[in-house]
Amino acid sequence: MACRCAAYIGENGAGHYVKMCHNGIEYGDMQMICEAYALMKGLLGMKAPEMGAIFTEWNQGMLGSFLIEITADILKQKDPVTKKPIVDVILDTAGQKGTGKWTSVNALDMGVPAPTIAESVFARCLSAVKEERVAASKILKGPKKKYRGSKTALVKAIHDALYCSKICSYAQGFQLMREAQKEYKWQLNFGEIAQIWRGGCIIRATFLQKITEAYAKNPALANCSSIRISTRRCRRRRRTGARSSPSPRVRRARPTFSSSLAYYDGYRSARLPANLLQGHAIFFGAHTYERTDQPRGNSTTSTG
Amino acid sequence: MACRCAAYIGENGAGHYVKMCHNGIEYGDMQMICEAYALMKGLLGMKAPEMGAIFTEWNQGMLGSFLIEITADILKQKDPVTKKPIVDVILDTAGQKGTGKWTSVNALDMGVPAPTIAESVFARCLSAVKEERVAASKILKGPKKKYRGSKTALVKAIHDALYCSKICSYAQGFQLMREAQKEYKWQLNFGEIAQIWRGGCIIRATFLQKITEAYAKNPALANCSSIRISTRRCRRRRRTGARSSPSPRVRRARPTFSSSLAYYDGYRSARLPANLLQGHAIFFGAHTYERTDQPRGNSTTSTG
Repeated sequence: MACRCAAYIGENGAGHYVKMCHNGIEYGDMQMICEAYALMKGLLGMKAPEMGAIFTEWNQGMLGSFLIEITADILKQKDPVTKKPIVDVILDTAGQKGTGKWTSVNALDMGVPAPTIAESVFARCLSAVKEERVAASKILKGPKKKYRGSKTALVKAIHDALYCSKICSYAQGFQLMREAQKEYKWQLNFGEIAQIWRGGCIIRATFLQKITEAYAKNPALANCSSIRISTRRCRRRRRTGARSSPSPRVRRARPTFSSSLAYYDGYRSARLPANLLQGHAIFFGAHTYERTDQPRGNSTTSTG
Repeated sequence: MACRCAAYIGENGAGHYVKMCHNGIEYGDMQMICEAYALMKGLLGMKAPEMGAIFTEWNQGMLGSFLIEITADILKQKDPVTKKPIVDVILDTAGQKGTGKWTSVNALDMGVPAPTIAESVFARCLSAVKEERVAASKILKGPKKKYRGSKTALVKAIHDALYCSKICSYAQGFQLMREAQKEYKWQLNFGEIAQIWRGGCIIRATFLQKITEAYAKNPALANCSSIRISTRRCRRRRRTGARSSPSPRVRRARPTFSSSLAYYDGYRSARLPANLLQGHAIFFGAHTYERTDQPRGNSTTSTG
């Protein structure tokens, strides 16, 4: 059954806002796919058509989406001039049209953590300074050992890391829309948003169906819904996903994978080290702080 | 010899801009210190006074700075009410006054990668949703194995990870000022900026002296100078720094450490996977791309 691909979102620019968040998530998706590709290419030496076949396979499962589908197509396509895979002749510098940046800036303004989306924007910025990177590559060194483990296991781990990172990134996007809803007094229907993103847009990810179902059950679902609804699966996959972190001496940059994992680990921490940061603030002259043994909102005056 | 702590920076808000970047770097420094603390506390079960002694020791070396010094003081201080270490009774939620956010937003606007600084802002945002985190900690699980390696080795690795992350973060800040200089037609003296930050401000980091010296040798020093000048030391430390990444089953959130390492690995990559991202863009309808076998600036029309 085809999904609906359009709906009325709300007043005063709500539709534009939701579209912006969609694009921020899309930036994240694209960068994560690039990281999966870079790990397979860099650590396993896989060629473009072989990776294309892997993406075709992934497109049948939980990762199924428009971007995974076209990634498979791109990887299989040949350059008419050189007959090499087209992806091997495209320069590795990406620009941006701004919507991923707007999402990141807005997240910063709203005080909502959206680190995966921001990392995907910064990854494009870093790709743009090609000449500098080429120069730096001759000076700055890193571990050079080759990956010697099982190829099948690493490909599976990369799949799982991609899937779990995706969940974290979507959670950030939905968290941002939730805050925007409060700020702008909208009545967003998150289940419906997930549904139209499933139906017709660039994301079109299979797993959005799970978000729709979760919101159908509970329209006031707590923050980070998409992580929560996928907990069991993510927990299982995360165990293998963690293995996608290659041994310390076999590295490739994977900013959105790392950032998503840090987000997950931070969000599931009842206690974060921000108490020390508050300690710093006391020293700077902000002479009140909240205590663990007092209700929130009660400020204590520092004697320090 | 005491360093100068003030200087004329430039016209049209240059001083304000440089101060903003200082604060962005300071946000990064504070968060990195929190991550070092969280790793020692969480993985090694170290108590506040013991960690205080470690920070006092670190303050004598390459990490020497005002923030490391006051961290030691805070960790040694007792709460007058409960007689517990003060840091243990402070609530783990941090606010922000905005300057770290401004730096991150401006980096996004300028297209300069400053992921470590942005992660430090997002870490504060995540700390603020305490109730959500407490709820999530009961649902979202992660690896639970205890760290069983050498304590001394791990503490040393945390030191090195902190130092290398700091280099990456400062590099981002200087890269941002360099772009701002072009944008606003300033004539910034980066060596002098490093010197006044060394002399009197919240950062006051010993290793800024190396940045000053590097700019004294070469005022037109290429981007990411602070990484480059510290290459040899960083390379050596990075090897151990990488070890601070505990085994996959022993995890704590360390967003700025991860982000700095991804930045380092990205910056030293002559080839990043953004070519695949350009492949995506071709599919979306942006029908030109640059090729690896053509000079930059020559666009090729896609036949796809």
